[in-house]
Amino acid sequence: MKTVILLSGGMDSTVALWHTLAEGHEVVACLGVDYASKHNAKELPMARWQAEKAGVPFQTANLTFMNQLFQSDLLQSGGEIPEGHYEEENMKSTVVPFRNGILLAVAAGFAESVEAEGLVIAAHSGDHAIYPDCREDFLAPMAQAIAAGTYADVSVLRPFVALRKEDIASRGAELEVDFTHTWSCYKGGDIHCGKCGTCVERKEAFAIAQLEDPTVYLA
Amino acid sequence: MKTVILLSGGMDSTVALWHTLAEGHEVVACLGVDYASKHNAKELPMARWQAEKAGVPFQTANLTFMNQLFQSDLLQSGGEIPEGHYEEENMKSTVVPFRNGILLAVAAGFAESVEAEGLVIAAHSGDHAIYPDCREDFLAPMAQAIAAGTYADVSVLRPFVALRKEDIASRGAELEVDFTHTWSCYKGGDIHCGKCGTCVERKEAFAIAQLEDPTVYLA
Repeated sequence: MKTVILLSGGMDSTVALWHTLAEGHEVVACLGVDYASKHNAKELPMARWQAEKAGVPFQTANLTFMNQLFQSDLLQSGGEIPEGHYEEENMKSTVVPFRNGILLAVAAGFAESVEAEGLVIAAHSGDHAIYPDCREDFLAPMAQAIAAGTYADVSVLRPFVALRKEDIASRGAELEVDFTHTWSCYKGGDIHCGKCGTCVERKEAFAIAQLEDPTVYLA
Repeated sequence: MKTVILLSGGMDSTVALWHTLAEGHEVVACLGVDYASKHNAKELPMARWQAEKAGVPFQTANLTFMNQLFQSDLLQSGGEIPEGHYEEENMKSTVVPFRNGILLAVAAGFAESVEAEGLVIAAHSGDHAIYPDCREDFLAPMAQAIAAGTYADVSVLRPFVALRKEDIASRGAELEVDFTHTWSCYKGGDIHCGKCGTCVERKEAFAIAQLEDPTVYLA
């Protein structure tokens, strides 16, 4: 199937790119999104690097209007990124309202424009606790809306929806993914902070999967 | 209910704004979208004019990435706007892939950010023939996805989904909407061309509703 990958430059979507290629699909393009998060400037070059390594065109959609119109500490206009485990209540401040809905909608229009039939999002089960727009009760109707709202009946593929992040790390290791060229940290500093929710989750994924973590953390 | 209106500056969404106010809802904001269509520069000032008249804040989301990434003659990067009736095959070239999906997704995130519980889209039955993303089999799952994907369970309200455009014109006349401050023409010239699909549809709506059409057309 001709597919488009939503590629943020994080671990999950990067493994999704390589997994989709390994499954034999034709990846016609990867789509990155600049939504003015504090870490876009760190993760998007990783996404481009991975796409180039895979020989797949990489495009970026500018959604920086979110910085003015949306409330979230993940955005440049928001407050400090909280530290601690993802599931803690304070991580809710990093939720960007309906972000995955917007990303999927944009990617669906893009997929139709480049004549792709499928669209891959790397949402996984560990995302579900905090993000309503990562859960299957969002993803299933969203997929139905995208199929009904496009001429080509674009399919939303969610290969990791039942996996945990450590399973994705394991799959990436199998596929020899270069994790040094992926970015997670929400703070977007020079190196991964090691303390924010997504750094904590990244560390845990490698540890639980019993893989060496190649990431350099500040703490 | 606290609502956000997707306000393009066309007839339908303008009547939707005044209809929503007349129904007693609190309209906390109107959202316009600049997606680099040939007529955005004409219709967005109309949207702003109507919102200001209604005393409602007006915001614009910049989605001009579509000009580079999407294929459509409606966009500045696209070919000539075809002339003739909406239902003709050549009008398909003006479809912007999954446009309403993207607009609804962006408006859903915006609604959550401004603490609105409802989101109004003025899609009507006349749109359905050509646009897959105006039909109820798209709108229903999209509404479900938006409710599931937002903390506030944002509701998508579609007051005109069973109406024809002439019914919307009639409702606007009842509400004394100033149609001279609405814009339809896809060509985006100085005045309405009178020949493109949306001009033809606008003329027909006034004629069938037996209303005086205040629009100045080139032809």
